[in-house]
Amino acid sequence: MLTTNTKIEIITIGDEILIGQIIDTNSAWMGQHLNAEGFKIVQITSAQDNREHIIACLSAAEQRADVILITGGLGPTKDDITKKTLCEFFNCDFKTDQDVLADITEMFRSYGREMTPMQVAQAAIPSIATAIRNPNGTAPGIWIEKNKKVFCSMPGVPYEMMGIMEHGVIPKLKSFFNTPAIVHKSILTQGIGESILAEMISGWEDALPENIKLAYLPSVGSVRLRISAFGKSEELLQEQVESLSASLLLIIDKYVYGFDNESLESNVGKLLKQKSQTLSIAESCTGGYISHLITKVPGCSQYYIGSVVSYANEIKQDFLNVDKDELEKNGAVSEEVITQLATNIRAQFNTDFSIATSGIAGPDGGSEEKPVGTVWIAIASKNGVTAKKYLFGNHRHRTIERTALTALMMLRREIMND
Amino acid sequence: MLTTNTKIEIITIGDEILIGQIIDTNSAWMGQHLNAEGFKIVQITSAQDNREHIIACLSAAEQRADVILITGGLGPTKDDITKKTLCEFFNCDFKTDQDVLADITEMFRSYGREMTPMQVAQAAIPSIATAIRNPNGTAPGIWIEKNKKVFCSMPGVPYEMMGIMEHGVIPKLKSFFNTPAIVHKSILTQGIGESILAEMISGWEDALPENIKLAYLPSVGSVRLRISAFGKSEELLQEQVESLSASLLLIIDKYVYGFDNESLESNVGKLLKQKSQTLSIAESCTGGYISHLITKVPGCSQYYIGSVVSYANEIKQDFLNVDKDELEKNGAVSEEVITQLATNIRAQFNTDFSIATSGIAGPDGGSEEKPVGTVWIAIASKNGVTAKKYLFGNHRHRTIERTALTALMMLRREIMND
Repeated sequence: MLTTNTKIEIITIGDEILIGQIIDTNSAWMGQHLNAEGFKIVQITSAQDNREHIIACLSAAEQRADVILITGGLGPTKDDITKKTLCEFFNCDFKTDQDVLADITEMFRSYGREMTPMQVAQAAIPSIATAIRNPNGTAPGIWIEKNKKVFCSMPGVPYEMMGIMEHGVIPKLKSFFNTPAIVHKSILTQGIGESILAEMISGWEDALPENIKLAYLPSVGSVRLRISAFGKSEELLQEQVESLSASLLLIIDKYVYGFDNESLESNVGKLLKQKSQTLSIAESCTGGYISHLITKVPGCSQYYIGSVVSYANEIKQDFLNVDKDELEKNGAVSEEVITQLATNIRAQFNTDFSIATSGIAGPDGGSEEKPVGTVWIAIASKNGVTAKKYLFGNHRHRTIERTALTALMMLRREIMND
Repeated sequence: MLTTNTKIEIITIGDEILIGQIIDTNSAWMGQHLNAEGFKIVQITSAQDNREHIIACLSAAEQRADVILITGGLGPTKDDITKKTLCEFFNCDFKTDQDVLADITEMFRSYGREMTPMQVAQAAIPSIATAIRNPNGTAPGIWIEKNKKVFCSMPGVPYEMMGIMEHGVIPKLKSFFNTPAIVHKSILTQGIGESILAEMISGWEDALPENIKLAYLPSVGSVRLRISAFGKSEELLQEQVESLSASLLLIIDKYVYGFDNESLESNVGKLLKQKSQTLSIAESCTGGYISHLITKVPGCSQYYIGSVVSYANEIKQDFLNVDKDELEKNGAVSEEVITQLATNIRAQFNTDFSIATSGIAGPDGGSEEKPVGTVWIAIASKNGVTAKKYLFGNHRHRTIERTALTALMMLRREIMND
């Protein structure tokens, strides 16, 4: 059995979704996490803040799915339309859930704030429902079972919904529907396109056993490969996934930077921290973006010293001591200049490693010899400088992003080989 | 008449949406643009790549809406499921659209590439349909009218869908349903929360005429106010909106940085370019993020010289000549140090303006006296230095973002007052 046959429909309630004021990221998050547990999402519906429409959506969803998950339409500004409509749909009254009330009371007590009737009202749920604790807010999840189907309503605030799903709804659904064991492992790659990757591993992929599924999840400059194993024993699946992942690594090792939810910048940071080594950056075409990625990671001050964004050539000359003749002869986007930038920032900032970037992000500045998208990247270490030229195409933002990821991947290789 | 009564339903087709592999940004974009033209979005449905399910969605949507817009499920990997299902739903055959075929042929001729049967198949549309040109790709939009209702299918690739919507579908819908004239103007603010803004302008808002709608569209650190005017004469509406916007500016002028779709960084860039002035940045807690925003704007090399990301204190000392005693006495997050950072980077990079940031982005590094979220920002110009302290709270990424926007807004004021 590859997946359960349990069908789920997601209903997101709110006019702000329909008019495009907010993007419905909730249902994508829910789809991803439920799919990973082997559930099948049959439809996502975004509905108006309007009782007739919500009732019509609930009735239609009940025909299609075993589980109906609802987000949004709770709270005072929405007049708690979802809760009221659920009572109407199931023909029941409200009750006050004492556990929820105690939770809210305790929360307000700890803030030293008074509870208003509005907050007390959060503890009222349909009488036939069970409350599911909200670890990140006051409005609980509302779980209702009817004819072996499950209806569950949650707040629309993403981190409240996520907390209720992770700690309450997903575990409850798994036990209610007695789902099979599932184990996932994502292998994160950089610097290789989806189709070439698919070709490289086609032999490995063709030999996968029946209980294994492989998904390609591409984004700008990187591809995530997700192995999913379905079966009875989680322990055996874990072993199976590890062994498959190991055989996959033998083929694509040089493109892999990490596993599961790690970012490339935090992986690089972890490696630097482990080795007590430091990093500086000279950025030209990436304009501070690599530094931004590195400093997004908490604790980066342990290994990251600083950067110079040398956008103007005078800064390359005056602050990073790039040779004026070289700059004039070869231009800033050249092997000579990138090598000097990497070498000099490393020496001046006194770090173990340095990154340098210089390129033509566009839309202007290209030439026959150096078209828009031409980028030089260099990594300097005590072993010398590795410099490479790339062509990243005619899209400013994507060129900046691809340059940054490629530079981090080059740095990663240097650290590993150090 | 405030809006038309024309109801629209959006159907996005694709298993990759249901399993959360991609977030459905298409329907948010469509909702936003259609709402701005006065249409009412009644439901958004995400459906499987599956003919029974698509037919069920089309039938249900036909009951609710006057217009059914469909994206996705075109192209060879999807087996053109949407096109085939439309033929089945409308009980018609395919025809080859000669204009589309000529477009595709010309496109391939200009690339010097051969057309494959797969590309020729893009010109096949349901026999009762009209093709709508795709300015950004080969698959056309498919427009079908039936009983005064409109069905329109488009590719799922966002920029292809956007091109077809902007140049084809929206103008056609407006003339088909004879919609009223609508004029919008967005006023972009920074540095003031939604609720305080609402309070400040409540008198102005209460006096708005019946044909005007106001929307608050908040994001991290900024709020967009959208004035929409509905009526008969576009020219008169334009005048009305301009006059309302002018009276609004009298109240909130100091928080406004621009109009409509401009970003704060491109607005600042435009001002610098107009005055032929230059900018340098010393970033500490923002770690390169302000430089990244500035360099996202094409043409920024005309006014942006460069930055130093002085993450480690040695870089502040050795490269930006911050006084060692001050650093030791007051710490890097202090008025003395931020003032020196701004002054020194401006002098060393020889620019008209400079920005400096220094703060505790967290999660670690806070103290009783300087909690996580404490940030100093300074702007230096020939008129001296303006330094301010902020408390941005306990969320690393939001603190970085809010610091960047606040710094750009402070810079904007200095440029305007210069």
